[in-house]
Amino acid sequence: MTQQQKRILALNAFEGGAALDSDVADLVRRRQATFGASSVLFYRQPLHIVKAETCYIHTADGRRYLDLYNNVPSVGHCHPRVVAAVSAQLAEFNTHSRYLYDNIHDYAERLLATFPAGLSNIVFTCTGSESNDLALRLARMASGASGFVVTRTAYHGNTAAVTDVSPSSAIAGGLAPHVRAVAAPGRAAHGDNIAMGFAQAVSAAIKDLNDSGYGFAGLLVDSIFSSDGVFSDPAGFLGPAVQVAKDAGGLFIADEVQPGFGRTGGGMWGFARHGVMPDVVTMGKPMGNGYPIAGTVTRPDLLARLCDSYGYFNTFGATPAAAAAGLATLQVLQEEGLIEHAGRVGSYLKQGLAELRGSLPGIGEVRGTGLYLGLDIVDPDDGETPDGAGASSLINALKEEGVLIGAAGPYGHTLKIRPPLCLQASDADRFIDALIRIGKKG
Amino acid sequence: MTQQQKRILALNAFEGGAALDSDVADLVRRRQATFGASSVLFYRQPLHIVKAETCYIHTADGRRYLDLYNNVPSVGHCHPRVVAAVSAQLAEFNTHSRYLYDNIHDYAERLLATFPAGLSNIVFTCTGSESNDLALRLARMASGASGFVVTRTAYHGNTAAVTDVSPSSAIAGGLAPHVRAVAAPGRAAHGDNIAMGFAQAVSAAIKDLNDSGYGFAGLLVDSIFSSDGVFSDPAGFLGPAVQVAKDAGGLFIADEVQPGFGRTGGGMWGFARHGVMPDVVTMGKPMGNGYPIAGTVTRPDLLARLCDSYGYFNTFGATPAAAAAGLATLQVLQEEGLIEHAGRVGSYLKQGLAELRGSLPGIGEVRGTGLYLGLDIVDPDDGETPDGAGASSLINALKEEGVLIGAAGPYGHTLKIRPPLCLQASDADRFIDALIRIGKKG
Repeated sequence: MTQQQKRILALNAFEGGAALDSDVADLVRRRQATFGASSVLFYRQPLHIVKAETCYIHTADGRRYLDLYNNVPSVGHCHPRVVAAVSAQLAEFNTHSRYLYDNIHDYAERLLATFPAGLSNIVFTCTGSESNDLALRLARMASGASGFVVTRTAYHGNTAAVTDVSPSSAIAGGLAPHVRAVAAPGRAAHGDNIAMGFAQAVSAAIKDLNDSGYGFAGLLVDSIFSSDGVFSDPAGFLGPAVQVAKDAGGLFIADEVQPGFGRTGGGMWGFARHGVMPDVVTMGKPMGNGYPIAGTVTRPDLLARLCDSYGYFNTFGATPAAAAAGLATLQVLQEEGLIEHAGRVGSYLKQGLAELRGSLPGIGEVRGTGLYLGLDIVDPDDGETPDGAGASSLINALKEEGVLIGAAGPYGHTLKIRPPLCLQASDADRFIDALIRIGKKG
Repeated sequence: MTQQQKRILALNAFEGGAALDSDVADLVRRRQATFGASSVLFYRQPLHIVKAETCYIHTADGRRYLDLYNNVPSVGHCHPRVVAAVSAQLAEFNTHSRYLYDNIHDYAERLLATFPAGLSNIVFTCTGSESNDLALRLARMASGASGFVVTRTAYHGNTAAVTDVSPSSAIAGGLAPHVRAVAAPGRAAHGDNIAMGFAQAVSAAIKDLNDSGYGFAGLLVDSIFSSDGVFSDPAGFLGPAVQVAKDAGGLFIADEVQPGFGRTGGGMWGFARHGVMPDVVTMGKPMGNGYPIAGTVTRPDLLARLCDSYGYFNTFGATPAAAAAGLATLQVLQEEGLIEHAGRVGSYLKQGLAELRGSLPGIGEVRGTGLYLGLDIVDPDDGETPDGAGASSLINALKEEGVLIGAAGPYGHTLKIRPPLCLQASDADRFIDALIRIGKKG
């Protein structure tokens, strides 16, 4: 088994073997017959879900789970205002965007108003993968080069081009020849001056791309480094690397699919935490609270350069139903004050988790900001060695305690905490209490 | 201006200059400010839409249009059963597919039952582009080669990899180096024995790919050849080309995004008309009647080969809301007998259009099957030379007559007729009457 295969198993995949309820066993059998090799499920005993609301998910066996995993239903599972807006629009009309209608323009303007001046054009797509795929094309057209720098355990989506820049997707085989991966901006890899260490790594990768003849098209990072294990501090650490990328003639692409839409608790976009100005920003997952909508925001000159050479059209992008979902989600986010709320509850939860270190065996460093936190699970004996198997056991034990959570990082040892933004302080307590109960049992 | 740029203008794009109603002018201005260079609109005077039902679209100025363009709302705009199913599901729960829930498996089984034995696995995606992107990866993994053969004015989607195999998307520049384009299977290019002529062209393209070192990964065609100008007859013409592709070690990928889900009036899938067995089938647009859902169907061994090397996950694919949309659409299609209906009304319309040739100036050949028809607009003097500008004028004149339609083909001279499948014979009459009125005026 390769290191990467071990990592993927550590990421809480169902492997069979455990006793299953009959409804679950039946669905697993039907799933494997139709989904085949792509039928990956979470948990040793997969969940059979029937309904969800706010931060809670209900299963067919009558249990209720606190959801710390699902960042897509960001303003809360099945938020009634979003559901009502989409449902009304689906009943009224819903076609592609070669005609004019009102709500997409209301939404485009309201969304673009959250960006720095200059980032004034948006292409609506359907998924974060499509958004990143388009971003790569914008960078290639702008630079005339084909090489990209990403982080070592990055995930940016599922198209052919985006899989090439997603080292975490490769189970067998190495990096695509035009891609260089650098260690994520953490202390372990880059020392105490993370900003300079990361910038130097990016600089060396760009030199290698130039030496290899690919040239440098862009630096693409998830600004919260979620699949790398969540890295957010110190704020500002991205600045020097972005400057290196721009000086080298490439674009800086901020992938905001994970941190965007207020999750970091300090504003709408993760890149703002680092005081950097992207050339392209991509977004997706939480944008429509579960309705498929995504987008690529960029400068007019970069978009024009692409459109001079290729037509770009997205059938399901910028539809009235997608606009209704996006607009309602943004309104709820802003009017319910969820960004500030995420900042407050996130700080409270982070503090609580930090206090567990030392008192509970196997609990390591906590990183992150707002409601995107990473909690390392480490060897209880040395308090340091990444423990992916331990994280996987803990994830399954937390499920028994009624808490849903996932893992990330190169060893699958970082608990990835990214609940709907309506998480309450009492929910945070519930999670911490569950960790303590499990720790005492263990 | 290049031939390709001319073609794109002929395809009914808004160019400015015409007098616009104030609401339309305002929306155009707002759109250009936010959508930038990608802000392509239909019609000399774009439509400002407010609602739609069945085969009819209503605009802000109180007009009602017969819709012969929109194949996405395939069972009818805003079909109440699909709207109700999606709305109920959005209110109940809607997460990604790493958990178990019922409706996606009901849908997967019902959908896969419409395929020949062997094509037993499905990967749900969000868009036809993602489905074709995945199909290309399956073919590359299976063959170890990178070369593809497509048709000359093909369109398969918008990702980087799929744009490479979509010659119709290129405004400037030539084909990607690993792609060979052959003329679509029409009489003009291949003579009276279309099947053999097309197979010989595919064979020569494969030889060229092998000689160039790319090798041959697959033959990818839209089985109704919609953007090439609609080619459907004689039934069976694809057989020899598919055999050539398989003998050469490549996959045959049937892109059913346009012809699929009963549009051809003779069954669920366009490839069946030609008696061929695809290795991969891709689908999208009409699958959820407007809700973003798409898929790639293939053999378990091909999917396993990809998944051995790469993880594949699609956040918005296989969600409960997507499954609700897909299942309700399929139920309506089957229970309302829309496939047989499309066959009957399509034949009636095709016959009516064929009778116009000779009596109306500029009306050329009609091709196609079911409710995917192509009507050539030709030079009125010689009755033969493709007339893209004439088609564009006719499209705008038809709009004035209350009929919405688009164009396709290498010269943009083929009217593309693909209404919602609930089109009635009286609607077909209305279209023919409009053509006659315009012809008499012209």
